[in-house]
Order: sequence, then structure tokens, then C-alpha cells
Amino acid sequence: MNIDVLQKRIRLPKLREKVTSAEAAAEHVKDGMTVGMSGFTLAGCVKSVPHAIAKKAATRPLKISLLTGASLGNDVDSALTNAGVLARRSPFQTDRTLRNAINRGEIMYVDNHLSETGEQLRRQQVKPVDVAIIEAVSITESGEVIPTASVGNNEIFAAQANKVIIEVNLAYSLEMEGAHDIYCASHFPNASPIGVMSPRDRIGSIGIPVPPEKIVAIVITDEMDTPSQNLPPDAETAQIAGHLIDFFKNEIRHGRLTESLRPLQSGIGTIANAVMSGLQTGPFSHLTMYSEVLQDSTFELIDAGMMDFASATAITLSDQKSREVFGNFGRYKDHVVIRPQRISNHPEVIQRLGIITINTALEADIYGHVNSTHVMGTHMMNGIGGSGDFTHNAHTAVFVTKSVAKNGVISSIVPMVPHVDHTEHDVDILVTEVGLADLRGLAPRERAQTIINNCVEGEYKDMLKEYVREANLRGGQTPHVLEKALSWHQRLHETGSMKETAKAG
Amino acid sequence: MNIDVLQKRIRLPKLREKVTSAEAAAEHVKDGMTVGMSGFTLAGCVKSVPHAIAKKAATRPLKISLLTGASLGNDVDSALTNAGVLARRSPFQTDRTLRNAINRGEIMYVDNHLSETGEQLRRQQVKPVDVAIIEAVSITESGEVIPTASVGNNEIFAAQANKVIIEVNLAYSLEMEGAHDIYCASHFPNASPIGVMSPRDRIGSIGIPVPPEKIVAIVITDEMDTPSQNLPPDAETAQIAGHLIDFFKNEIRHGRLTESLRPLQSGIGTIANAVMSGLQTGPFSHLTMYSEVLQDSTFELIDAGMMDFASATAITLSDQKSREVFGNFGRYKDHVVIRPQRISNHPEVIQRLGIITINTALEADIYGHVNSTHVMGTHMMNGIGGSGDFTHNAHTAVFVTKSVAKNGVISSIVPMVPHVDHTEHDVDILVTEVGLADLRGLAPRERAQTIINNCVEGEYKDMLKEYVREANLRGGQTPHVLEKALSWHQRLHETGSMKETAKAG
Repeated sequence: MNIDVLQKRIRLPKLREKVTSAEAAAEHVKDGMTVGMSGFTLAGCVKSVPHAIAKKAATRPLKISLLTGASLGNDVDSALTNAGVLARRSPFQTDRTLRNAINRGEIMYVDNHLSETGEQLRRQQVKPVDVAIIEAVSITESGEVIPTASVGNNEIFAAQANKVIIEVNLAYSLEMEGAHDIYCASHFPNASPIGVMSPRDRIGSIGIPVPPEKIVAIVITDEMDTPSQNLPPDAETAQIAGHLIDFFKNEIRHGRLTESLRPLQSGIGTIANAVMSGLQTGPFSHLTMYSEVLQDSTFELIDAGMMDFASATAITLSDQKSREVFGNFGRYKDHVVIRPQRISNHPEVIQRLGIITINTALEADIYGHVNSTHVMGTHMMNGIGGSGDFTHNAHTAVFVTKSVAKNGVISSIVPMVPHVDHTEHDVDILVTEVGLADLRGLAPRERAQTIINNCVEGEYKDMLKEYVREANLRGGQTPHVLEKALSWHQRLHETGSMKETAKAG
Repeated sequence: MNIDVLQKRIRLPKLREKVTSAEAAAEHVKDGMTVGMSGFTLAGCVKSVPHAIAKKAATRPLKISLLTGASLGNDVDSALTNAGVLARRSPFQTDRTLRNAINRGEIMYVDNHLSETGEQLRRQQVKPVDVAIIEAVSITESGEVIPTASVGNNEIFAAQANKVIIEVNLAYSLEMEGAHDIYCASHFPNASPIGVMSPRDRIGSIGIPVPPEKIVAIVITDEMDTPSQNLPPDAETAQIAGHLIDFFKNEIRHGRLTESLRPLQSGIGTIANAVMSGLQTGPFSHLTMYSEVLQDSTFELIDAGMMDFASATAITLSDQKSREVFGNFGRYKDHVVIRPQRISNHPEVIQRLGIITINTALEADIYGHVNSTHVMGTHMMNGIGGSGDFTHNAHTAVFVTKSVAKNGVISSIVPMVPHVDHTEHDVDILVTEVGLADLRGLAPRERAQTIINNCVEGEYKDMLKEYVREANLRGGQTPHVLEKALSWHQRLHETGSMKETAKAG
């Protein structure tokens, strides 16, 4: 590599001696260790050392516990899974190979509220991180490590690990220096308030302070993050966005919101991204975000002049948008900040800012309990991620889902969800393409009426009405017919459809 | 009444003209109104005007929405229920008559996280309070209203209502002046940090500022709160406390806790109170509480010299302990503070202080999801109360329950809870008299093993092992046999017992 590039990227001279191969760096990872890796929703994932670890496992026993920010890209989770390296994995993933191994019970997966993983480490409630492997744009003169497209739990991993491996990724421009705000919250018994009073407040430093003697290896890479694969908005996501815009307009009309709404959080994935993108058609201005991930829609809103500022712990973009944003980062630098996930997802800050949260439900029940994670109540899809951090503390907690899935054989609104991630207490607004249910201040029986009337149509609507009629005969605050509560999922399992007609046929 | 007493209790002279009868005060409450009343877990409940409202309903149509701090005593909820006055009720109750009406679907009951009720009012997300009815020890020279044994949502009700009715209760000593810390958190867009850095920090004033012109009536009462009816500790609660003490000792040994533990929160009720009381036998010192309610056990620990300070929004005591504490309040004044429930239960403060929470589970499932509220998944017992506020944000979230109920026909550990109040993500430690399950850092399959091995015994243990064996064959992160997941509750409904032997017999 060009010595000039090396001098710009590793500005503390003595650290340049640490530059080595991924294979040599991987030697620091031993069987039985807990490894903390950078990476949050594909962004800022280390790209080289993990694959070297996977290769190493072919020749000797190597099982590790892997902690990250959230999901990894660049085939890291699948390579480590296929190599049999993962004994334990936390706190989030979206990888198909890994997911299948988790659901076979081969890998112990602990999905966490994303604000809590680092706290559990700091409280010594889980095994400490032995080695941290962190992607960086550069290392400054004073030894601060500048992260790339995410911060995640990096500042905690680096503080706790005895050995730190850095991957300096040349694919990210040095323009990213200054994009981050690294603040390690003080801890009890001397904890003090987190000083974020608005999404744009900076309270920390531009990089992660890592004592140079802890850095045992530096590996040079030159590869972008795996792009996100969100599907483009479609008719149904446009309808969901439309219902939500109408709701916001009404809130503005009644003086409960202004045209800048409240700071917005949006979950990852196609639907939430499409809904955020759809806000462009609304009468909003000076929007802000205080979220965990910024997707394409954020930069569309910035480009459209509708969004002033966005705070998150990761930037996860499509291939095209990634080129636009990271290829010209200076243009966006005054509009975004990338924080540790402890701060992006901190209940204290979320409470203070009064955030409108928009997350995707896998399914919801008639009382508004939401399943975000478990297909059929048993099989893990991704994980709870930050959805609990945000909805527990939201000004207004919105969940979005299409009313049916798989060409209609699955209803996303069911009598009882077989797995609860978010209870009715934390679900204010439920939106499908059919309509919007405003559940604020309603009792469970009223919630059921509102959800069925507004969010469901066709055969499933009739079936849910009949279920409620029968359940109400049994009484209760939250009436159910226990022997039929999970029957829709059983029918799906047995007949391939939740519809009764399918069963009859 | 003695004029001297009146001058001491109502020190702003012009307000003395407002003294009137409960019946006259009740005339301010009209059909269709939303009424905010003081009262939190029996403590500080208004005692006279509510009964006058109930009487008034005999002669004319009168339906109201009633908001409180939490549960009321002095037969207020049952009197209002019997008089048909309650159209809606929020955010918590423990009254048998009211509960039955709720479960018949006659009264719309919205149980809230107790930190959120006031916020929903301030955000205008629910109908505003028209009239506030608040119990007071006194009204100061400057018109500050000094609450009695609870603060609850009083400061928000008083701020929002156009009319405020005060019940000055002579049964409380004037010594209680100075026991409260009234702080109304600033609101977005200009919210600032809540300045509580330790349980004993005072950040507000001693009373609730109420503009004198809003006070439309003052009623004099002389009656104590309904005493709590907690059962005394028994062999099983002593075993639960013993397991928890052993756990704490081990945490201290490993340096994860000190002998003062962390600030403690304890839910209401017999088991949580008995467990707190049992901490007296542990090697602890300089304990503190940051809780929503202080029960007898708090004052036992203070008297024993083991607890330095306790913060809450209410003091709810047995008859005997009430005489001791409120009859000699000066003795305890330096050891307690009574705050608004928005502050006692504020996620920001709970996160910062690093609290150990101890709450009672109605039942828990093998994965550690907890049902705190719904008998058979349908019928409301009390409400979620503050258990979500605390466990979402806890340093260590403990749930306690006896392993069986009703002479063994009900297992408190079941395959799947039919109602989820707390998800596995928020449940760290589960304790029954059988033992303690430390679930921290465990994946669901590991949680199931730990809970079954440590917290269950006898026939139910065998039945749960068999359920897990069968569920694991179907795979998944959280294996279940959907058609059997709720079968224990169905069997209880049909046979009167969860046991299979009962079914066979």
C-alpha cells in the first residue's frame, strides 16, 4: 500500500508497525473467547478478519461467543456459521444461514434490546469481551479510532477487551472524520444525565479512545458494506404511508403536533423505509430523526429539503444510495451524526425528545399486542432489535404491517399473537394498507373493535368479528376463546392457510 | 371545626371561604366529565367527595371517566361502581367490585404504565381532566397544596383541570409538610434532564402550586387511608427471600454488587412485601429504595438500621404500621421522600440509578415471559401498574411467585403464558420457593432448562420437561407445541386443575 495513504489513515506513527494480515490478526482469537465486532444492520461490519477466523476453524477447534452492534453484512455471519465457529450470538442478526442454525438450536442466540447489550457487559452480568475487532476510517494522531458507517457497541467493546484489532477500510472517505459523536455514558453510582437535548446535539468526541498498547493488529481493507436489499415502495406501502400522513395532518390540525412532527425513529426493512419515503408527499418541514438506522428514505428527505437533521448509530443504504452518500459525504456531514447505540437507543434521551416511532410488525393481535420476531411464535426471524427501546419510551408508537402476507394465506392481524414483543401498553397506532387504528386511550375491547374495523378486510374481518363475539361471551378485560386463540396458526401449519375456506376445501 | 385548626391547615386566608360540604363540592362534577383524583395504592385517596358523587348519581344521570394515581381505598371504587358512575377508569385498580364490572365489560378500563398516564394527558393524547379532587394535609400561605400519603398524578391533574377540589384531611399530621418533593418535569420541545442523581435528591417544592382561583371547594375530612391487607411472611415467602439473599450474596462476592446492593424497587402485595421484609436476614447495609410504593417492609428495614433512605410516590401500610409511621412521622422524615409518580417511575431516573426491581408474577412461562395481570389470560386482576416502568429500565429485574397456587391445582410456571406483560428481554431473575433461575445472558432454550430445573418441582416439573422435549422436536428459537401451549389453562378451565392426573381421574 502507498505509504502516503498509510500515513493519512494511521496518523499515530507507532501504530503503523501493527499493520498485518487478516490471518495474523485472527490468531488473537482463541477457542472459548467472547469477541466483540463492529457492525450494525450491515453497516460498518469488519470484513476481513472474520473470514480469516472462519478459515482458521478448519484446522483447529474454535468456538466463540460473538457480540456485535446488530446484524452483520459481507457474509460474515454465514461464513462463521458454516465454519461452526459460533457457539453464541448476540444481540441481533438478519442472516439466513445463521437464522437457520439458530432455529435448529445449534447456536444459542440471545436477542437483546439494543440499548442493553453494552450495559450488561458493563454491569458484568454477561461474560466480558476478550477481543474487539473494529472497522475504522482512520486512527488519529492521538490514537482515536474513527468508525465507519456505524458505531454500535464499539466504544464498549474497545474499553472492555484486552486486545483490539482494527480494520482500516480505505473504501470509506476520510471525509467521514467528524461524522461521529462518541460518548461513553457515565455509570452508577456516579451516573449523570445524557446531555442530548435535541437530535443534533454533540456531547462526545469524534473517535473512540483506544490505548495504543491494546491495539494488537491493524488490517487494511478496501470494501464497501453489503448494500441493503429493501424493495421499492409499492401500492400497499404507499397506502400505509397515506394513512399515516392523514393521521399526522389531523394531529397537526388539533395542535398536538407541528409540521415538523416530533423526531422520528424508523425500523429497518422494506415497509418502514417505504413509509418514511412516503412522508415526502406530506405537508411537513424541518423534520428530524433520532433513530438507530438511517436508510435511503432519510437521505431522500434530506435531499428534498424536508429533513434538517438525522441522528443514528448506523447508515445502511442501497447500492445506489450508498454511492451517492458515501461518495460525497461532505454534503451530508452537517445533517447527520452517528452515535454509540447506547446513546441512539437510550431510554432517557428517547423519553426526553418525545419521539414518534415507526416499526414493522410481523403480526399483531386484535388487542394490539405485536409479534416482531417469531414466525409461528417459535422460529426467529431477526430479533427485537431497538424496537423495544423506542416503543417503550415513545411519544407515539406506530406499528406498520401489510394486512396479509403470502398472497393472503396469512393474516397479519390474528386473534392472539403466539409471541409478544410489544404489549398493548406500548402500541399506540397500528396501520395496514386497509387503514389506521388509533388505539390511544382505548380499553382492550375497544382496541379490538378499532383494529378489526380499520385494519382488516374480507374473510379475515368476518372471522375476527366472529372470534370477538364468541370471546366476549366468556367475559374478561381481554376476552379470548383459549382453545381457539392460536387456531389460526395451527390451521396455517396444517393446511397452509389461515383461512377457514382453505380448511373446508 | 376549630378555627385554630382551620388557620393552621389552610394558611392562605381567602381560601378558608371555600370550605364547604362534600355534597356541595360534588356539584362541580358533571355528567361526561373526566375527573382526576388523588390516590395511589390505597394511599392519599380522597375520602368524602367521591361518596357524595356516588350519592348524586342516584338522582340524575352521571357518568364520568375517572383517572387516579393508582388504586383507591376507602371503598371509593366500589361505591362509584355500584352507583354506576364509572364509564371509564384508568390507570390502575385493586377493587373487587370494580374488577368484576371491568371483567363483565361494563366499565372500560385502560391500565397504563403508571409513568405514562400524566404524559398522555400533557401530550393531549387522551381527553383532558375537567375536575381534580386532591387530598391534602394543608394549604400553605402561598397556596401550595401539601399532599398526604401519596402524590400520584396530582400535580398534573391540578395543572390541567379548570376546577380543583381539595379534601383537607385532619387525620394526617402537619409533620408531613416537607415530606414531598413536587417536580413537574419540563416538556418537549424544551425538556431538560430530571435532576435526580440518587434516591434522596430533592429537586422540587414541598407542595403542589395551585392558583387559588382554580380551587372551587375545600372539604374537611378526618379519616385514615384503608390499611393494606398484606398477609404476613410465611414459609414459602421466607424461602423466596432466602434464595434472593443467596443470589445477592453471590453477586457481592463476585464484585457485581456491594453490600448496599442497588436502590431497590418492590411491587405491592403480600409476596413482594414479605420478600423485602426477609432482606433483614441478609448481610446488607445502607440500603436505599427508589420505588413507587413503600410498604411495611421499608419501615422495618429503616427501624432495623439497614435502610438509609426510601423514595416513592406513596406510602401504603398495614393498620398497625400506619399508626407507628404516621403517628410519629417526624422520626422518618429524613428517611423518605414522596414524589409525583412521573418522577418515582421515570425511565430516565430508573436507568440512571441502576435499580434492582422485585415484582410479583401471576405466572411465568418456561421462557421467562411474565403475566402480571390477566387470570387465564382474559380476566383482569389489578393492572400492570409500574412493573413495566421499572423492569424495562432495571439494573436487575427480579420476578417472584410461589410455584403453585390454590393448593397445587395451578402451576405458576406454564408452557406459555396466555397474556404477556413482561417479555423475556425484561426478566433477569425468576424466583419461587423451589429456587432461583438466573436468566441473564441465556438464550430461550437455556432459559427453559434453567427455569424448569430451578423453579418447579413434582408433577409439573415432569410435565414441563415433557413439553420441552416435544417442542424441541419442532425446532425454533423458542420452541412450542402450539396446540398444547395453552392446554394447561384449558384443562384448568375444564377440570379445575392444571394437573394431568386430575384429568385422568
